[in-house]
Amino acid sequence: MTAPLRIAIAGLGTVGGGVAHLLLARGDELSERAGRGLELIAVSARKRMKPRTADVSALAWFDNPVALASCGADVIVELIGGEEGPARALVEASLRGGKHVVTANKALLAYHGAELAALAEAHNVALKFEAAAAGGIPIVKALRESLIAYGIDAVRGILNGTCNYILTEMEATGRTFDAVLAEAQRLGFAEADPALDIGGGDTAHKLALLSSLAFGVVPDLDRIKTEGIARITPEDIGFAREFGFRIKLLGIARRTANGIDQRVQPAMVRAGTPLADVEGAFNAIVADAGAAGPFFFEGRGAGEAPTASAVIADLVDVARGANGPAMGRPAAKLKTLSGMPPARVSAFYLRFEVLDVPGVLAEIAGRLAESLVSIESMIQRGRAPGEPVSIVMITHECSETHVARALKVIAASDKVLAAPCMIPMEAG
Amino acid sequence: MTAPLRIAIAGLGTVGGGVAHLLLARGDELSERAGRGLELIAVSARKRMKPRTADVSALAWFDNPVALASCGADVIVELIGGEEGPARALVEASLRGGKHVVTANKALLAYHGAELAALAEAHNVALKFEAAAAGGIPIVKALRESLIAYGIDAVRGILNGTCNYILTEMEATGRTFDAVLAEAQRLGFAEADPALDIGGGDTAHKLALLSSLAFGVVPDLDRIKTEGIARITPEDIGFAREFGFRIKLLGIARRTANGIDQRVQPAMVRAGTPLADVEGAFNAIVADAGAAGPFFFEGRGAGEAPTASAVIADLVDVARGANGPAMGRPAAKLKTLSGMPPARVSAFYLRFEVLDVPGVLAEIAGRLAESLVSIESMIQRGRAPGEPVSIVMITHECSETHVARALKVIAASDKVLAAPCMIPMEAG
Repeated sequence: MTAPLRIAIAGLGTVGGGVAHLLLARGDELSERAGRGLELIAVSARKRMKPRTADVSALAWFDNPVALASCGADVIVELIGGEEGPARALVEASLRGGKHVVTANKALLAYHGAELAALAEAHNVALKFEAAAAGGIPIVKALRESLIAYGIDAVRGILNGTCNYILTEMEATGRTFDAVLAEAQRLGFAEADPALDIGGGDTAHKLALLSSLAFGVVPDLDRIKTEGIARITPEDIGFAREFGFRIKLLGIARRTANGIDQRVQPAMVRAGTPLADVEGAFNAIVADAGAAGPFFFEGRGAGEAPTASAVIADLVDVARGANGPAMGRPAAKLKTLSGMPPARVSAFYLRFEVLDVPGVLAEIAGRLAESLVSIESMIQRGRAPGEPVSIVMITHECSETHVARALKVIAASDKVLAAPCMIPMEAG
Repeated sequence: MTAPLRIAIAGLGTVGGGVAHLLLARGDELSERAGRGLELIAVSARKRMKPRTADVSALAWFDNPVALASCGADVIVELIGGEEGPARALVEASLRGGKHVVTANKALLAYHGAELAALAEAHNVALKFEAAAAGGIPIVKALRESLIAYGIDAVRGILNGTCNYILTEMEATGRTFDAVLAEAQRLGFAEADPALDIGGGDTAHKLALLSSLAFGVVPDLDRIKTEGIARITPEDIGFAREFGFRIKLLGIARRTANGIDQRVQPAMVRAGTPLADVEGAFNAIVADAGAAGPFFFEGRGAGEAPTASAVIADLVDVARGANGPAMGRPAAKLKTLSGMPPARVSAFYLRFEVLDVPGVLAEIAGRLAESLVSIESMIQRGRAPGEPVSIVMITHECSETHVARALKVIAASDKVLAAPCMIPMEAG
């Protein structure tokens, strides 16, 4: 039997503690699957004397996580987080030193994925990140190893549980975004600083990785048009329901005639389709695998056990000698995207808050027609006399550039009271 | 770069032709992922001179598939089918000769999986079968490599597209099983001899493999209680809908206090849950991965592209040197199940066709009560006077043994006109 795989963990928070606990408590079962022992030899965390589920007192302790790179481990598990600082320093030093790396750090890979993949290849070691994309869902492995025969046409996913929880709650209770966010923070379902989640940044990090795996492109956040959920109102959610849709924050990467389109944005997804039905903090991904058809994956995207589960799977892969290229293809073959990202062609949901005066609908319809945007259906909801009125439309398929141009003109009208809302319709 | 992986394919039907075509048409892309060339060198099929998408005229041809085992290939792709005969002979000869094997043959592995896994290990070669379980869905890899950290509590799946298509059509049109089956055969969605599909046998083959991967048990069809869908009536489907359920043919393997419970049977699944919403010929699996929670996978379970996609994924795995044990653990560690399989405890749907005479409901209710079966809800549907009446009940959770005992007594009553129908309620 091969010698045990020696493991060091940097970061003993929820996930790191869970991984340490699994290695200590289920080591025999995991070793049977790995074909060799899995031996946790060293850890690093901010506070040494904190109560933890896993008893790490017998392990080598490092105050400086970067020192783990030379602690004698075969593989370093990086669970510090952040795209720079000690996480980056540790991962680079580990790969340079010929150590395998397993990480859950989506930001690090979204910013530096191609360089780090190249570094791993140069030193003939693995760089694995199943936990970085959708928690316990094995989507990284599926895109890297399983859905490869016919290529991928599109990946669409609900990749941030906090956003999906907030949208689900808003729909269930009719409350505003601010109210639901405040409650989610109180309950610990949202971070004290929620900007990365609700602004779409976290989804963009994950999408950059899925897109790289699916399309062989360099992860590049600058190529991902990113928009969060803060502007979604209970009215939009209500109108969506009337039209038979639900609003979800999607990360989408798809192959188009004009290049790879990557975006994070709230989208209208038809009720009853797989992504529309994803509730609460769950994550889910649809991968359109060419002739092999769509595949749908759903599961827990965050939290101790789902994330630790993904880290353990990567460790067992490393133990078995699976150290192919991080993105499924040689790093040197990853394509750098350039030029303008393609404009989206789809149907759009539009909402206008207008004065209830004659001619307002004619003006909006006229501006849209001038921009070649035609309307498929419309709801106008009357309120008390003199109060603003919501006009809601769903367009036929058209270019987002055309819609945006029309909305800019419409927004300038003195009959229009607020910036128009525009949400694309997406397949679910 | 490592030498190319030399591949031979036995069986050039829909799937084999698709695999050959992919290897010839997308060889560069796949080689990039495999880290080495993928070279199709030999094929065997029943008819040499048949028109095929893939031009195999330049390849070595073998009339006898078993001869492929010594044709100089590194890996043999077995797409002949059947648990005995040339398929078994070829796989055994290949493994004995130190060749890797990739197969889509669920029957072969359901009957001989443990022996073949041991043979592969003894000769240090891979035995891979992603295509055998749910077509293109990477559930074999997920259970073998990804969802391993916390163990699996249960696997529940829709594993036969023909059955799911028939049940979906019966529900959509109100037609009988026989009528929908005949149409499915006319349209080519069901085999001329559909017994293996509609009788649940095909689902049992696949379940035996998933159960082995999930629980480390020897695949054993004798331990799988198997029942098909031929007895499902439009009435049952209609009543299911009234109660908020849909009827699906599920393969279920779960860990219970009394051992591993494995069964294939029509089940009532609550509408709106993932498995209940699977339509038409799609396959889907829920894997309850302990603390990591439930994971849901859905996709095409049969047909050229989905199945060829799974075969290609296995070939690339083999090319990369992934030749761990077939069932994810050493074959010698697979447990042989013994003793009585545990009886199922769940709620049950019961339907009785009875004479519309006084006392019949009292008699049925009394017999159920004697067997400790209590009723949660009931529908009695009146018909024309003198015609038989349907009494439909959903029980509280109880042992299937108790229900079966009561039904046996009830069936003997002269007021009861047909064998009572009993369908368990399952989580979706």
